[in-house]
Amino acid sequence: MPTVRLLTDDKLSPAARAVFDDIRATRKTTYVNDFWRGLANDPVTLKRTWESIKQVMGPGSLDPLVKEMLYVAVSIAHGCEYCVASHTASARTKGMTPEQHMELVAVVGMAAETNRLVTALQVPVDEIFRTPPA
Amino acid sequence: MPTVRLLTDDKLSPAARAVFDDIRATRKTTYVNDFWRGLANDPVTLKRTWESIKQVMGPGSLDPLVKEMLYVAVSIAHGCEYCVASHTASARTKGMTPEQHMELVAVVGMAAETNRLVTALQVPVDEIFRTPPA
Amino acid sequence: MPTVRLLTDDKLSPAARAVFDDIRATRKTTYVNDFWRGLANDPVTLKRTWESIKQVMGPGSLDPLVKEMLYVAVSIAHGCEYCVASHTASARTKGMTPEQHMELVAVVGMAAETNRLVTALQVPVDEIFRTPPA
Amino acid sequence: MPTVRLLTDDKLSPAARAVFDDIRATRKTTYVNDFWRGLANDPVTLKRTWESIKQVMGPGSLDPLVKEMLYVAVSIAHGCEYCVASHTASARTKGMTPEQHMELVAVVGMAAETNRLVTALQVPVDEIFRTPPA
Amino acid sequence: MPTVRLLTDDKLSPAARAVFDDIRATRKTTYVNDFWRGLANDPVTLKRTWESIKQVMGPGSLDPLVKEMLYVAVSIAHGCEYCVASHTASARTKGMTPEQHMELVAVVGMAAETNRLVTALQVPVDEIFRTPPA
Amino acid sequence: MPTVRLLTDDKLSPAARAVFDDIRATRKTTYVNDFWRGLANDPVTLKRTWESIKQVMGPGSLDPLVKEMLYVAVSIAHGCEYCVASHTASARTKGMTPEQHMELVAVVGMAAETNRLVTALQVPVDEIFRTPPA
Repeated sequence: MPTVRLLTDDKLSPAARAVFDDIRATRKTTYVNDFWRGLANDPVTLKRTWESIKQVMGPGSLDPLVKEMLYVAVSIAHGCEYCVASHTASARTKGMTPEQHMELVAVVGMAAETNRLVTALQVPVDEIFRTPPA
Repeated sequence: MPTVRLLTDDKLSPAARAVFDDIRATRKTTYVNDFWRGLANDPVTLKRTWESIKQVMGPGSLDPLVKEMLYVAVSIAHGCEYCVASHTASARTKGMTPEQHMELVAVVGMAAETNRLVTALQVPVDEIFRTPPA
Repeated sequence: MPTVRLLTDDKLSPAARAVFDDIRATRKTTYVNDFWRGLANDPVTLKRTWESIKQVMGPGSLDPLVKEMLYVAVSIAHGCEYCVASHTASARTKGMTPEQHMELVAVVGMAAETNRLVTALQVPVDEIFRTPPA
Repeated sequence: MPTVRLLTDDKLSPAARAVFDDIRATRKTTYVNDFWRGLANDPVTLKRTWESIKQVMGPGSLDPLVKEMLYVAVSIAHGCEYCVASHTASARTKGMTPEQHMELVAVVGMAAETNRLVTALQVPVDEIFRTPPA
Repeated sequence: MPTVRLLTDDKLSPAARAVFDDIRATRKTTYVNDFWRGLANDPVTLKRTWESIKQVMGPGSLDPLVKEMLYVAVSIAHGCEYCVASHTASARTKGMTPEQHMELVAVVGMAAETNRLVTALQVPVDEIFRTPPA
Repeated sequence: MPTVRLLTDDKLSPAARAVFDDIRATRKTTYVNDFWRGLANDPVTLKRTWESIKQVMGPGSLDPLVKEMLYVAVSIAHGCEYCVASHTASARTKGMTPEQHMELVAVVGMAAETNRLVTALQVPVDEIFRTPPA
């Protein structure tokens, strides 16, 4: 049960509607998922979040699928069910194969294990890793 | 300060030494970082962890650099300083450019933000994301 | 599905009943939410937790609504659905407006983002922030 | 040891310099803390993050000190040392008293405890908390 | 809704079937829980995970029930509902009494509280705790 | 660098001093570690936290060493360096052998891995684990 109303199109403020229009145009779909309908209660946060996502996930030096897989990995580590579901679906849309998905999952699991092993043993960072980048 | 001794080469059990030999051969370096020297106190866990890492991070359907970047992303989300430092260094060795690094960091930050926004709003997963894979 | 029985009033031990009586008197309501019905399986932990909550959330130098909003913020960061739902409801009861709720959510999201950016970049604490309090 | 160079003023790109100018003007101080010097390696992320922080932490329906305390609370829950140090210092600058600080800390600790108790007991959300906001 | 198909016995690859056979033989039950049916999409990860679990949770210097309770504690701290449910059930099978369960829960809650208090106060590790083990 | 002063004995309020006296008497040592010296800035929270710890970690149905190991496990999962160091030291004092320590660490690592695998795959809880306790 959401802690805010998920706004249907007819309840949007003009500012929120403008963001929804851009989401639809950018994604080339009429579907706007419920995360945005929750954020629409605060058009300023809605707009800022959407603009930020567009910038961060847009063209750059990393492949869009790689970015989406990084998003999935972080969402798993933070335990966000909605985010795992939606970004896994999105990664599939961007071409992630079932094999790549299972490899991503395996890497996340392995990282989780060694992250906790290191913390348990309180290993100081090796000098070799502390060399500042040039 | 580590919670266990970080074993120097002369303190290794034969079983631990065999793992160190494989680490050196696989990585083509004489350097074995301190994480492994901590785990060496338990040769069974040392061997299992190393074998698992080799398998998970080895050849597959994802690029080795992508796997390393996923490792960095999870390590950030789990707040493991050692892991962030060592896997960022490793990603650099595998070819990560400064631009790619900063993009990775930006994606992790963005994911963290929307992960928490979703949890705050308790948005249920859209039906469209719940379609089970074929 | 809870991992323990959620005790109805007729199943309470005398010690648990005494705590429930105090919850009802303090909150001026007959409703006791299911968290307490789970804890009631261990009257000692029930009593200690209730007494602690009463003390921590009671009158002090912070406004009760501010305390409740801090509770919501932590619950989001820890990914506790029940806690987000119940403390958001409680904050509303204490006067949180929809605008304040959305601002709280935005701050939590922003903090999550910069928390992870800092961890990714491993920025040491500036000397200026390390000055010990007088 | 940071994973990127912390850029001194003379190393800033024009785009990064413009952001630094705004940080200094907005905060009415010449000091720019090292978080921004790390982000300056990516002027786009630097600018987006600063603009977002300015908006989120700027005037609204919540008191600036309350926002800063929420930031501290989230930073504690995420285990970010730099963020705890810097935002606690910032909250002090905005008027947080030692008593308020210790109350904030107590609330965060209490929330952490009950967050985990609820998760341990897997208590479903009470119907009363699921009533959607009007 | 799982992000992968949960494979029924008739859909298993020979490699996955072999692991399922070992799970059934080791646990002396025909029931294989859905976690393994998800992992079965990647027989290599399935086999590695099962072999690792068998080793880690097998005979050693800690009582099997203690290991299971540690598993529950970590699962609570990571907010994994499935893991809390399944490992709490498993701990019961291994003899955990209701009293022990509630004590485990109380310890986890208490640890969560002081973990966050320490992080909030940024207390450096006492010299007395930094003495390296002999 | 702590965010509060760590109070030396001569700076304690009478209420804080009384708690320190009890810590010393209960633990049969003159040493009071710095966590308590930080909390001493708020004698009410100091007293409540100490009394809670005494109750939770005191005699019960779980062995004191088991409780201490659960504390270590949770501290690792929450990434609290101070807590890992201090409770690992405490577990040693209570008899934890190096072998038991490494087994504890291995279980925590394994749990972290499967916790994240489950979250990645979004496996629903099996009906068999949902049977409510009698």
